[in-house]
Amino acid sequence: MIRGAQSIAFECPAYLVSSASVAGTKEGEGPLGRMFDLVAKEDLFGENTWEEAESAMQKEACQLALRKAHLKPEEIRYLYGGDLLRQGVATSRGVEALKIPMFGLYGACSTSGEALALAGMSVAAGYGDYMLAVTSSHFASAEKEFRFPLGYASQRPLSAHWTVTGSGAFVVGKRKSPVWITGITIGKIVDYGLRDSQNMGACMAPAACDTILQNLKDFERTTEDYDRIITGDLGYVGQSILFDLMRGKGVDIKSRHMDCGMTIFDQNLQDTHAGGSGCGCAAVTLSSYILPKLANGEWKRVLFVPTGALMSTVSYNEGASVPGIAHGIVLEHCKGGLE
Amino acid sequence: MIRGAQSIAFECPAYLVSSASVAGTKEGEGPLGRMFDLVAKEDLFGENTWEEAESAMQKEACQLALRKAHLKPEEIRYLYGGDLLRQGVATSRGVEALKIPMFGLYGACSTSGEALALAGMSVAAGYGDYMLAVTSSHFASAEKEFRFPLGYASQRPLSAHWTVTGSGAFVVGKRKSPVWITGITIGKIVDYGLRDSQNMGACMAPAACDTILQNLKDFERTTEDYDRIITGDLGYVGQSILFDLMRGKGVDIKSRHMDCGMTIFDQNLQDTHAGGSGCGCAAVTLSSYILPKLANGEWKRVLFVPTGALMSTVSYNEGASVPGIAHGIVLEHCKGGLE
Repeated sequence: MIRGAQSIAFECPAYLVSSASVAGTKEGEGPLGRMFDLVAKEDLFGENTWEEAESAMQKEACQLALRKAHLKPEEIRYLYGGDLLRQGVATSRGVEALKIPMFGLYGACSTSGEALALAGMSVAAGYGDYMLAVTSSHFASAEKEFRFPLGYASQRPLSAHWTVTGSGAFVVGKRKSPVWITGITIGKIVDYGLRDSQNMGACMAPAACDTILQNLKDFERTTEDYDRIITGDLGYVGQSILFDLMRGKGVDIKSRHMDCGMTIFDQNLQDTHAGGSGCGCAAVTLSSYILPKLANGEWKRVLFVPTGALMSTVSYNEGASVPGIAHGIVLEHCKGGLE
Repeated sequence: MIRGAQSIAFECPAYLVSSASVAGTKEGEGPLGRMFDLVAKEDLFGENTWEEAESAMQKEACQLALRKAHLKPEEIRYLYGGDLLRQGVATSRGVEALKIPMFGLYGACSTSGEALALAGMSVAAGYGDYMLAVTSSHFASAEKEFRFPLGYASQRPLSAHWTVTGSGAFVVGKRKSPVWITGITIGKIVDYGLRDSQNMGACMAPAACDTILQNLKDFERTTEDYDRIITGDLGYVGQSILFDLMRGKGVDIKSRHMDCGMTIFDQNLQDTHAGGSGCGCAAVTLSSYILPKLANGEWKRVLFVPTGALMSTVSYNEGASVPGIAHGIVLEHCKGGLE
């Protein structure tokens, strides 16, 4: 069951029973727009504040995922959730009404990986039939939290990311389904000493490299064993650094790499700089784009690696570096999963 | 293994192999002062900022707990940790150097319960021989995060808590020890609509009540089955509300109740208002005061219920309510645990 230094191979399968994606207006205009379950008409989602909007989005994603799985909230044993806001308020306000026992998480933009890992671990251990994993981010609440309120109209450097307005929810459980989680690789904090919070791709790339290499080592696999190795939100800057770092270790992932942050927006048409980011970026891309390809067997096995930059406004104002973390989730097509 | 709606009874035991407590100067002058493993000479712990001080404290607690268990960081499979600061920076900066694969958590002051629950679940499931659970809080970093910088010398109402400067770390593992975790009850978010962030005891008491009642129901126990029912940081205000709420449900816990926030400071001598609070409060009280009593058999079984108030400065400035959450950890004396 334990594999190598950081990984677990699940003996009892943890299926991805259902998933849902809720996205903002800009995301709806992007390449994945038609694949999302729900696209906002306006980014406040009918609420008064950006934070409430994010909570509304997260609640909607949970309810949609539950509905698709034909489950009531009380049939979910535990909920694992998180977001980017201080003290995770988007999640606690978002999931409160569901009344599911919950674990609050924080792993920056790697949180969707953390939530899926813990949900998978819980199902595989027999701690319940169904778990719910949910994450979210909102462009406007994130700009306010980490940069400046939108009203200031601050300029952003080209290495900066565009936080995705979106929430992805996943029911992980024992019930057979075409996609399952077969293993996980939990990441360490990796710190190359970078201090530029406007260049998160560079801050996170070393962590992504570390987790991918560890996954290959722990499971005794090569990159060829994965149809895709999918990072969360390294973006254009982070991707090139990841390629360089991996090449330095003798591993070339160019042909199999995909980055959710580069997939969700059209860089030329949407002016999103280094690419999309945020807890919602990898989550909605997984739900809308990756899982369908795994479900129909186009991809047999992918390594999903959401990446996070562990910083706060206080830490970078104090001159601290921005370390990264990345968790690896092995997702596989399950033959006969629809029985 | 699954018990009732929210609980798990561990079939494979998860032992509390070792623990460590590091505390600030004021805590060192309090009733538990002599019981802490390490008391600061000054609350900056040799660092330049309060945030770095909190990280230094957390790192020290982890290293002490590891040393007591005669373990190296690389022998710990996963680390579960959190704190009160935005984006959990005290934890990510504190544990970074240990290079242990990590899960970042946020459950406000209930985080020590969340971390112990997940560490126990992981050990009981066979996901590794040893896990590390760590939480911290620091009076000065918390005042800055949630209220005002200390330099402002703001007055605080009597219902306000005094955030504990302290960090507690726990090695949870398979190796026999005199105390084990035999079960957990994961809490739901409970919201009575209170909006006063300076009265967290009142905000958290309903969640504590909910989790304690659920624990008794799920494990088919009465209060008499516990030597103590120990809440994290309800304080004087929260305790009286908890007693009222429990009495309303026909359960009297007065004779068995203890609150870490009321235990750690001397209310008369130390001017700490409603009592201690923070992620470190329950953790250092558990390590220094509760575990020794369980280890020597004075207490056979206690229910440890850290309580958290799920809010941020943004959420309460926007007028949102302050919901609570509480997780229950069943800790028992293990006969022959020193074999």
